[in-house]
Amino acid sequence: MSEVKVGIINITGYIGMEIARLLRQHPGVKLTSITGRGAVGKQVSEVLPHLDDFDLTIKAELDQVDFAFSALPHGESATTVVGMLERGIKVVDVSADFRLKDAAEFQRWYELTHPAPQYLEEAAYGLVELNRGKIASARLVANPGCFPTGAILALAPAVREGLIEPDIIVDSKSGVSGAGRTLSLTTHYAEANENVSAYAFEGHRHLPEIVQELQQMAPEPALSVTFLPHLVPMTRGIFTSCYAKLREGKIAGGEGGREKISKLYRDFYGGEAFVKVVAAPPQTKQTRGSNRCLIYPTIDLRTGRLIVISCLDNLVKGGAGQAIQNMNLMLGFSEETGLEGLAVYP
Amino acid sequence: MSEVKVGIINITGYIGMEIARLLRQHPGVKLTSITGRGAVGKQVSEVLPHLDDFDLTIKAELDQVDFAFSALPHGESATTVVGMLERGIKVVDVSADFRLKDAAEFQRWYELTHPAPQYLEEAAYGLVELNRGKIASARLVANPGCFPTGAILALAPAVREGLIEPDIIVDSKSGVSGAGRTLSLTTHYAEANENVSAYAFEGHRHLPEIVQELQQMAPEPALSVTFLPHLVPMTRGIFTSCYAKLREGKIAGGEGGREKISKLYRDFYGGEAFVKVVAAPPQTKQTRGSNRCLIYPTIDLRTGRLIVISCLDNLVKGGAGQAIQNMNLMLGFSEETGLEGLAVYP
Amino acid sequence: MSEVKVGIINITGYIGMEIARLLRQHPGVKLTSITGRGAVGKQVSEVLPHLDDFDLTIKAELDQVDFAFSALPHGESATTVVGMLERGIKVVDVSADFRLKDAAEFQRWYELTHPAPQYLEEAAYGLVELNRGKIASARLVANPGCFPTGAILALAPAVREGLIEPDIIVDSKSGVSGAGRTLSLTTHYAEANENVSAYAFEGHRHLPEIVQELQQMAPEPALSVTFLPHLVPMTRGIFTSCYAKLREGKIAGGEGGREKISKLYRDFYGGEAFVKVVAAPPQTKQTRGSNRCLIYPTIDLRTGRLIVISCLDNLVKGGAGQAIQNMNLMLGFSEETGLEGLAVYP
Amino acid sequence: MSEVKVGIINITGYIGMEIARLLRQHPGVKLTSITGRGAVGKQVSEVLPHLDDFDLTIKAELDQVDFAFSALPHGESATTVVGMLERGIKVVDVSADFRLKDAAEFQRWYELTHPAPQYLEEAAYGLVELNRGKIASARLVANPGCFPTGAILALAPAVREGLIEPDIIVDSKSGVSGAGRTLSLTTHYAEANENVSAYAFEGHRHLPEIVQELQQMAPEPALSVTFLPHLVPMTRGIFTSCYAKLREGKIAGGEGGREKISKLYRDFYGGEAFVKVVAAPPQTKQTRGSNRCLIYPTIDLRTGRLIVISCLDNLVKGGAGQAIQNMNLMLGFSEETGLEGLAVYP
Repeated sequence: MSEVKVGIINITGYIGMEIARLLRQHPGVKLTSITGRGAVGKQVSEVLPHLDDFDLTIKAELDQVDFAFSALPHGESATTVVGMLERGIKVVDVSADFRLKDAAEFQRWYELTHPAPQYLEEAAYGLVELNRGKIASARLVANPGCFPTGAILALAPAVREGLIEPDIIVDSKSGVSGAGRTLSLTTHYAEANENVSAYAFEGHRHLPEIVQELQQMAPEPALSVTFLPHLVPMTRGIFTSCYAKLREGKIAGGEGGREKISKLYRDFYGGEAFVKVVAAPPQTKQTRGSNRCLIYPTIDLRTGRLIVISCLDNLVKGGAGQAIQNMNLMLGFSEETGLEGLAVYP
Repeated sequence: MSEVKVGIINITGYIGMEIARLLRQHPGVKLTSITGRGAVGKQVSEVLPHLDDFDLTIKAELDQVDFAFSALPHGESATTVVGMLERGIKVVDVSADFRLKDAAEFQRWYELTHPAPQYLEEAAYGLVELNRGKIASARLVANPGCFPTGAILALAPAVREGLIEPDIIVDSKSGVSGAGRTLSLTTHYAEANENVSAYAFEGHRHLPEIVQELQQMAPEPALSVTFLPHLVPMTRGIFTSCYAKLREGKIAGGEGGREKISKLYRDFYGGEAFVKVVAAPPQTKQTRGSNRCLIYPTIDLRTGRLIVISCLDNLVKGGAGQAIQNMNLMLGFSEETGLEGLAVYP
Repeated sequence: MSEVKVGIINITGYIGMEIARLLRQHPGVKLTSITGRGAVGKQVSEVLPHLDDFDLTIKAELDQVDFAFSALPHGESATTVVGMLERGIKVVDVSADFRLKDAAEFQRWYELTHPAPQYLEEAAYGLVELNRGKIASARLVANPGCFPTGAILALAPAVREGLIEPDIIVDSKSGVSGAGRTLSLTTHYAEANENVSAYAFEGHRHLPEIVQELQQMAPEPALSVTFLPHLVPMTRGIFTSCYAKLREGKIAGGEGGREKISKLYRDFYGGEAFVKVVAAPPQTKQTRGSNRCLIYPTIDLRTGRLIVISCLDNLVKGGAGQAIQNMNLMLGFSEETGLEGLAVYP
Repeated sequence: MSEVKVGIINITGYIGMEIARLLRQHPGVKLTSITGRGAVGKQVSEVLPHLDDFDLTIKAELDQVDFAFSALPHGESATTVVGMLERGIKVVDVSADFRLKDAAEFQRWYELTHPAPQYLEEAAYGLVELNRGKIASARLVANPGCFPTGAILALAPAVREGLIEPDIIVDSKSGVSGAGRTLSLTTHYAEANENVSAYAFEGHRHLPEIVQELQQMAPEPALSVTFLPHLVPMTRGIFTSCYAKLREGKIAGGEGGREKISKLYRDFYGGEAFVKVVAAPPQTKQTRGSNRCLIYPTIDLRTGRLIVISCLDNLVKGGAGQAIQNMNLMLGFSEETGLEGLAVYP
């Protein structure tokens, strides 16, 4: 295959620049065009020195490319993406614009009328491990949110197999880069450092995404998910702790149940390159910079409750890496191409 | 009152040294004697330079004092504490040795035969806001664990009033100083930094403490608590997120329910100097270095679930500060004496 | 003395809020009025929850007070300060407006015409340990910059005694709160965390302050100071490393020289409550939250070069604490009043 | 070329495990054997989960390999290395054992009689950019220390060209992983976090290495180097600030001098893949995880002093990456093979 020309729309955000880093190692594509708000006309090396291997100028619009990543903010992305599609360019949209299937639901959560609802049905939800078929043939993929990636991967086997009661608690701990590069007091160093906080008590925009994907795996009963995201003082990483009661008669609560649940998870994700069911409790550091999601299902023996932990790097499996994984599927590359990097530990 | 002579057994741990820091500001007592494993014979200024205002030599045993804090590890503390009591010295024991009322339960969790079970009944559990009467007249107070302090204070109003179902999730995020000063790979900087992990999946020793104290407030029904502690990369602070279903017919799930629950919590802790029910989500940084526990109860409107957040500094309200608060009660000082310091923010 | 009414102009910055925290422990004064840009009309507890002990509303202008701290940015502060002076109110100005004695020098470094040059001569430079007399009788004190506090205290004994050659390197490492609370990409968490950088290669505004104060102690020869500030990923603390050649014939370079220089420093700062010459290399953590500056002079035996280290908390001895130390002198309180807090370690 | 079998001696230290991470991306070699103290008999995935792609058992001794990295501590490494050499295996020794050319100097600094002084002359000092020829033909390469890599690269152009006076200050700021994986109170999280300290005031073992390499570039005059390492609270990265007076008549001190010095540095390192002379002040974060050393030379216009900054990742260019760069040269691979990874930013 001759080299595919790829563009990144809005390289100056954390996901955009991380896509560039990872593409550098991809043998089948070449990053040939980039845009970036507020930096038009500058060399990428000037704005993002760690990317100075790329001899590229930041432009207002992409040059002709074969494939594009849009890393624009939600609301802005949809219109740009549609323009690309109409010119025959396949797109992975990193924003939230095409994740929710229901335009009304989008409006409720994002307080915007959806700019292109006619594409919602077509857009594939880009959680590869659960949606490989549709992604492979899609021209538009909605890259999942960072929290949903960790939460859905952690819960999918249990939900699909009907192992748990519908009452689910998802308690996530995220590094600060998840809040993006836009300045705010919350992400001001002296405020975020040596601090833990929780936010979005009224409901986080990633909640409907989690529910949409899990519910379609098991339409009954209706899930009742509480999702509370926390901010912890580190740059990268999401640690998600999920809690739910085991349904009676499905899995026993004892040591044997633990083995059973672990095997069930291993079978579910058997053969996956980027989702690993681990035998010991994982840590976010084991995923730093890599496209891995580590999952640890276990049972609280005293209460018979299922606990599932997932760890990932919010900018890689929770963002740029997953975007490239989607691109690989869409373009017919092996899914792992360019994503072989191991975690940068410690 | 003439100045009370106070001693600290094992000043070289984090709780021990923090007691010294706080005592410095106490007008009614004077730190006159200290011990510390591995540093006997040294000046405190040499071993702990930030305490060089104290002109004290670290000894193998305490000199004659009127009151003592034991900051020895569990198992070791009990015997030393009993020796103090027998000499007529009141003690706050910071270790876990006298927290659990049941010697068999102690043995199960700590894998030790209790060295002084005859004192278990007498020892007061030192969570002042819930046990003020017994503490005031006690000669031995078991200072609560750092996690139980946050969890029990967060849940006590809801449990006592019977507002919630017995299925409770307690998800705590702790700074690394909570693991103490003993070296381990887990607390090695390069491992703990930029990392989140969970531990004690088999049950943390603070769990029986949480259950013991909550259950006695509401003997029925039996509580089913899952407690999962997490390690986050900061030095001080515990952020605890509690989740439980509201019992039907007690509190409505809507906005009105939120106000009701907040009022109920404010009433419960009305007049407390160190437990504040706050109107906006709190952060651990707001408690750094202070004896405050901040509590934020709310309702997840979508699921009708109660969420209660608590924040505290594990070394102060979760350790040394609470120990001094107990001492104040035991010696007849105003509870706030020496504990007036505001949070060191940012 | 009846209680003195004190005001803080711009409490919403880090120095302003830290002054409030420390005043809380001061028995002789009472914080009665506060202003804060962008938060006028709000309760302090709403904007700065850790200060909720103060039942104060943030106003546009101070009410009648006996003493004021101005924590406005440079350029803005001078005019406000002059207004206070004219109403007979003594002021400690935390901004840079009255630090440099020469209006032209101010203009060169701050690119502003000085709004009140007639007060430059009168204003006392508020480094108490070196300027106690003038401060005690001043009605306007210019609180030193955080870097100059550490650098001048480290070098003053050597410069005054003529021990070193005029070629001096000052390499400072500052926590991020030193950059204030105004948002910037440099202080965005994900950028500042896990990162070290240097800045102000064209000359930092604290350089002329350092030179002004040191040079007046020893007019000859002209000092040639290179000052390079670095940003390190922590919230509070400045670690300053100073390097200079020992002048021949003054102090021998060997072990004996080390003892001599240490004694000379100890004598210089003998009796000071807040400047401690230490016998072992200090760490910023030993000063966190306290008004201490720790100084460690030594000699590089191989090269015969003097090395002096100083550590302080930029928001306390390098800011709010020093401001209160100045107020104490100006109002006739004991210098240590309200500043007794030990370092919050770890 | 058929795949080269490579072994790592002591993979359980930070440099050892980082070599494994980087080798994973190397198309020409295969990691086939590993040893690790205290973990013999275990699978690498069990001990180092982020390396679970390697299906290798940790052994007491290496199996037959074509090339080896020794990541043993100094003193222990030499004997093992000699054994490898005698079996015809080329080695990069990451320890300090073969860095100093003079056995007496080794003894002075490391307080050990050198176990194999007969190899000191033969061993090539593995700073590729300055010693490429000797390394390419060596069978034993001594991988430079992390601090010397940054300091020597920063100063080499100035020293070789005789631009500076012999009085040189090297002030380095290192992340905590530089202290290795062995537990100590200094690297205990709660002690190292939110803290800056300096150490090795009696002389750091990397000092003679710096002097040895710089002095041989310009035998006269004798250099007088003060090197002070500092510990800053981050995991990876070294930021080195070098200060020296420009020699008269060589480079003018003004803006023109700056351009001249920058050009001279760019010419010196022209064509280097891993040493970049940058036009704006660099930051350690720009090198995280990559094999880059960024160098920024400038002139303090007020004093006419040269300032040179260097940034690198102590575990990559200051350790594992440089070791692989050396291996590439020794085995005839392109120097960049396997080292193409860009910095993981932020």
